[in-house]
Parts: sequence; C-alpha cells; structure tokens
Amino acid sequence: MNILTIDTSTIVASAAILNEDKLIGEVVINHQKKHSEKMMVAIDHLLSDGGLSIKDIDVFGVVVGPGSFTGLRIGMATIKGFAQALNKPVVGVSTLESLAMNIPCSSGTICPVLDAQRNQTYTGIFHFEQGQLVRDIPDAVMEIDDLIEKLQTVTGDIFFLGDGLPRFSEALLAACPRGKRVPNYLNMNRASSAAALVLERALKGEVSNYLDIEPVYIRPSYAEEHHNDH
Amino acid sequence: MNILTIDTSTIVASAAILNEDKLIGEVVINHQKKHSEKMMVAIDHLLSDGGLSIKDIDVFGVVVGPGSFTGLRIGMATIKGFAQALNKPVVGVSTLESLAMNIPCSSGTICPVLDAQRNQTYTGIFHFEQGQLVRDIPDAVMEIDDLIEKLQTVTGDIFFLGDGLPRFSEALLAACPRGKRVPNYLNMNRASSAAALVLERALKGEVSNYLDIEPVYIRPSYAEEHHNDH
Repeated sequence: MNILTIDTSTIVASAAILNEDKLIGEVVINHQKKHSEKMMVAIDHLLSDGGLSIKDIDVFGVVVGPGSFTGLRIGMATIKGFAQALNKPVVGVSTLESLAMNIPCSSGTICPVLDAQRNQTYTGIFHFEQGQLVRDIPDAVMEIDDLIEKLQTVTGDIFFLGDGLPRFSEALLAACPRGKRVPNYLNMNRASSAAALVLERALKGEVSNYLDIEPVYIRPSYAEEHHNDH
Repeated sequence: MNILTIDTSTIVASAAILNEDKLIGEVVINHQKKHSEKMMVAIDHLLSDGGLSIKDIDVFGVVVGPGSFTGLRIGMATIKGFAQALNKPVVGVSTLESLAMNIPCSSGTICPVLDAQRNQTYTGIFHFEQGQLVRDIPDAVMEIDDLIEKLQTVTGDIFFLGDGLPRFSEALLAACPRGKRVPNYLNMNRASSAAALVLERALKGEVSNYLDIEPVYIRPSYAEEHHNDH
C-alpha cells in the first residue's frame, strides 16, 4: 500500500511516500511559505525518483492542523484534488501527533509546541508505549502557563519540539527540570512522520472520503472572530 | 554556518542543508541506485527552495562509509568537486554514526546494522549521553554471531536499524530480548542526521581539506582482494 502524505501546516512544506516495506522518498523544505508553488514540484520529483506515478498511490495522507490557516487549506485542497480525481481514500493526521512521531524511540513524555500567536501555543502531550504513539491530552490551544501546570505532574524526561520553541523554550525548560529540546534536525514537521500514522490507520481501514475531511483549526481565525470576509 | 551534506553510502540518496538555527531542507530518495543522476538535481532543488546558492555553503559534509563502494565514490567525488571549486572545508561522517543520529532522543543502546554481503554486517554500537552521540565500539565488519556476542553484555533497550535488518533482524531479536527495530521511516540513512554531526564538528574546527578526505571501506573490495583492475 503506497501512501503519499503532505504537510503544509507550518512554515515547512513536506511530502513523503511510504509503504509497508520502506520510506520511498521524502522532501522537506523549511524556508519561507511558498507551499502552493513548491508542493506540486516536490510531489512530482518524489514520484519520479520513486519510480511511481500518481496512480500508484493507494491512500492520500494530509496533516489537518492545528497550524497556519492558509497552509492547512493548501494542504487540504491538494490532497482532496488527488483523492477525488483518482477516487482514493484520505487519512488526516494532527500536526502535533505527527511531530511526536519524529522521536518514536524516546522514553518519556513528548510535548509538541506550536506558536499559536497571542502568547498561546497549540500543544498536546504524548508518549510511546511498545512502539505505539499514545495521546495523553487532546490537542488544544493553551496559554503557556496552563501547559506548564499540566506538565508539573509528569515524571521522567519531557521532550519539547516544534516551532513554538524559540518563543517558549526558556519558560518550559525553567519549569521542567527534566525537559529537553529535540535537536533542530528533528524539531519540525516531516511528512514521513505523518505518513507512518497514515499508513497505520489505513491498514486498519480508518480512512475518510475526500468530502468528509476538513482542517482542524482548533480555534477560529482572527478573521472569523471579527466577522471579516475571508 | 550553512552545511550541505550528502549521503550515497547505501541504496538511499540523500542531501540536506542545515545551519545552527534549523534544517533548511532535506531530500531522501530510497529507490534504486541512480545516485550520480539524482544527486545533483536534488542539490539544485534544495538550494533554490532554501533561497541559497552553492556559494552560500560554508562546509561540505559527506558520509564516508562503510557502505556501497560505488556509492561512496560518487559521494566523495561530488563533495570534493564542490569543496575544491569553492575552496571550502569538508567533514566526513561514518555511515553508522549517521544512522545512530536518526534516534537522538532514545535511551538505550543503538546498533546500526548494514548488510555487508557474505553473511557479514558493517556495524557499530552507540548510545546518547546528554544529547551527545557516544561510540561504544569502532565501526567494523563482523559476522552476525560476533555482533550478538558483543550485545550480550548490554543491559537496557537495544535499537536496531539499517539495511541489514531484513537479513539479520530475526537472529538479532531472538538473541536480544530487549532488542527493538527502529520504525521504517527512520530505518535508513538520512543526510540531515549526518549533517547534524558535520555541523557539530565544523563548529569545533574539526574539518578536512578536500585532498585529505577518503572513503572508509573498512574492508577491501572484492575486486581489490582478487587483484582485478577497478
């Protein structure tokens, strides 16, 4: 089963093709948001370098949020286009659980932290149990102090990662003596990590139709809150 | 300091650009060896997607082996070409230590296992200590039974990864009750993992000249052993 998964939820544009045997290829671009330009080119290269055509893809995966509203819409539109045109199922994965999948061999707690602006984070808490990702709290938008409070009960190492670290790592590490930063090269979204979850769910039949899948913004956009047209 | 690192040591062709702040981009192609064709195209895209020209690269990194003899020569030739033309330093990294860098948040022992043919492996043993990769034995070519013997003294989890797993994982997991396979999407060489070591060493000034760096084959090629011209 060949899975094509894309992630445009943050400044990173990433695409990966994975099957039961191996990761066939991955592209990660972490420089300026030009996702709509870059993503289709990246997918073209992934397919041709992998000796595949788009028709060889059995399931399309997409990171559904939280994250950049525009980024999420681009990712969603791209994947819905493929799935509709080729009549294939879709699997959505949270931005935060995808980040946690960057460090599957860790023992301890994993806390992805995205910068949600307005001094808030999109965050979740996870750990691995016998190789499976386990969610400890639902994805949420949270003040940093509320996250710190939740982490006070955690024993053992806490691994922080995500684009919220430049803003929040100082406070998090000060409050959590066993807190650690995941190294830079595994600190951001990678489509291969999302693809691993997509594959797992697709193999269990947990797939959606392109009509049913939607971005998960967690909170309304500024524009929506202020009743602007967007 | 911008680091461009390439890895053509196995069937995977991978390139990544990393600096002190972030991974700017990465390409992983894991399908048939056509490294000489694919690598230059991948580097071109990485640079342009990252808003960089090749002149913006300060240090060139390369995975020096062990691995495929032809692959290592292609990687070496590519990186020496860049470094000579632009008069920039080079840093070499072992294929096995680069693999170990795929799981920097693990606690336990890391044992990369490459298929060295003739029922042997290229292998090493590593662990992380306060975020730093520590080598427990030198890279070596080894019969699988000798590796298993060395692992008998290890307490705690042992993470196996690398292209030797299809052939050797059954024996390794049977002999090591706390052995685990690293998931597929982190099971093969990634240039970003090598780049992290390259950056670390470059920042300490541990760089080479393009004339001084050589592949590390660990054992002579079949051709060399049999005095053929190659």
